[in-house]
Amino acid sequence: MIKIYFRNFDPLSRALIIGLGEKRAAFHKIEAPVFGADVDLLNIDPQGRTPILTDDMWGNGAIIREAMPAFEYLEDTIPSPHFFPGGPMERANVRVFCAEAIRDFAPLYQTLMEEKAHKILNRAGSPDMQKMRHLRDGAREFLEVTAARTAKGGFMIGGKFSLADIIIWAQLSLLDYFDLVSWDLNYEAKQFYSGLKQRPAFRAVLVDTVAGIVPPPHYRNLDF
Amino acid sequence: MIKIYFRNFDPLSRALIIGLGEKRAAFHKIEAPVFGADVDLLNIDPQGRTPILTDDMWGNGAIIREAMPAFEYLEDTIPSPHFFPGGPMERANVRVFCAEAIRDFAPLYQTLMEEKAHKILNRAGSPDMQKMRHLRDGAREFLEVTAARTAKGGFMIGGKFSLADIIIWAQLSLLDYFDLVSWDLNYEAKQFYSGLKQRPAFRAVLVDTVAGIVPPPHYRNLDF
Repeated sequence: MIKIYFRNFDPLSRALIIGLGEKRAAFHKIEAPVFGADVDLLNIDPQGRTPILTDDMWGNGAIIREAMPAFEYLEDTIPSPHFFPGGPMERANVRVFCAEAIRDFAPLYQTLMEEKAHKILNRAGSPDMQKMRHLRDGAREFLEVTAARTAKGGFMIGGKFSLADIIIWAQLSLLDYFDLVSWDLNYEAKQFYSGLKQRPAFRAVLVDTVAGIVPPPHYRNLDF
Repeated sequence: MIKIYFRNFDPLSRALIIGLGEKRAAFHKIEAPVFGADVDLLNIDPQGRTPILTDDMWGNGAIIREAMPAFEYLEDTIPSPHFFPGGPMERANVRVFCAEAIRDFAPLYQTLMEEKAHKILNRAGSPDMQKMRHLRDGAREFLEVTAARTAKGGFMIGGKFSLADIIIWAQLSLLDYFDLVSWDLNYEAKQFYSGLKQRPAFRAVLVDTVAGIVPPPHYRNLDF
């Protein structure tokens, strides 16, 4: 059985859960706290990182403590549908895109966690207005880039569904949880996001919520 | 024809050159300056990163601007010898190890570039003694971890040659260029390093030097 240790607001946890769903893998989810780590997680990773994928299919069990290797592992064991479709060049394009998307999202994610999630959960005052402006600008720019890329083929890379779509969608869904996306300003990005939202594996991650932080009404709405 | 844009002191450039050699690929090396970037590199990547692998085998040519995707690309196109040997779990172990090795080496690398390479090339004074102590401590710890891992099977992971060996060896060779490794203090690490040094693909990267910074006499010596 595959298990995944995840955090609700961690975009790569979301992406891995979506990926497992797309591959129709049977798996078990173990939730870690939004901040810090509990004993379950620390037993698996002393550094308390997420996402972590374990699989007891092999002798002593596999423990994969990095997101990209976890996706590669799933692609190795359950080839279809492909995370990395096409030939070697297309596959390289998807891999490079994903590595950059993960890195580029990190500063937005950090601000989001510090200014919104942390302050709300700990009643630690209201967010810094300048940082929130940066966050909204970042979200808008992110949406524009997504729109430009998906306008033609409907997907992030080469008109084919790939891991790039899963990762970008997971990041967008996190921004949407915090109501940071103005969907009406960007038709193509909304088309991309709502198209994938129809797929069961994507929709499934929208069910999880964090007590004390309520997503906007449209967050789970398939026809928003 | 495969081309690689590399920097002499960039451990991932070294690793990619070694990897190409191990796969017996025909390739062409284009050297970028140690600091900053020249027009050749900026034409390929506006951010001036290295290593970058290009391959004109496909329609418009592939340009791969990330190290791990470049290794995966080579594994896709030239499977043998394997960078990621074994089954899915072993392959995941190598991928996770490489991702962590790249991340863990980053602070050592930054100090090395700032305190040694930059100051020597720009005659910008002598290195900060405290930072140099950190660097030597880091190098010693790195050697100990390498020794512990390779003492049994001779290689970093599971007694099999993999990309993990190439990356760690490339990092060690850079530390050795700056004479930061006390080989005599660590027999197992020396065995590992000198064993791979015999292989033509590894030996080949020791030929490149940077004008103004001379490696110690044992650097290229196969029997040191």
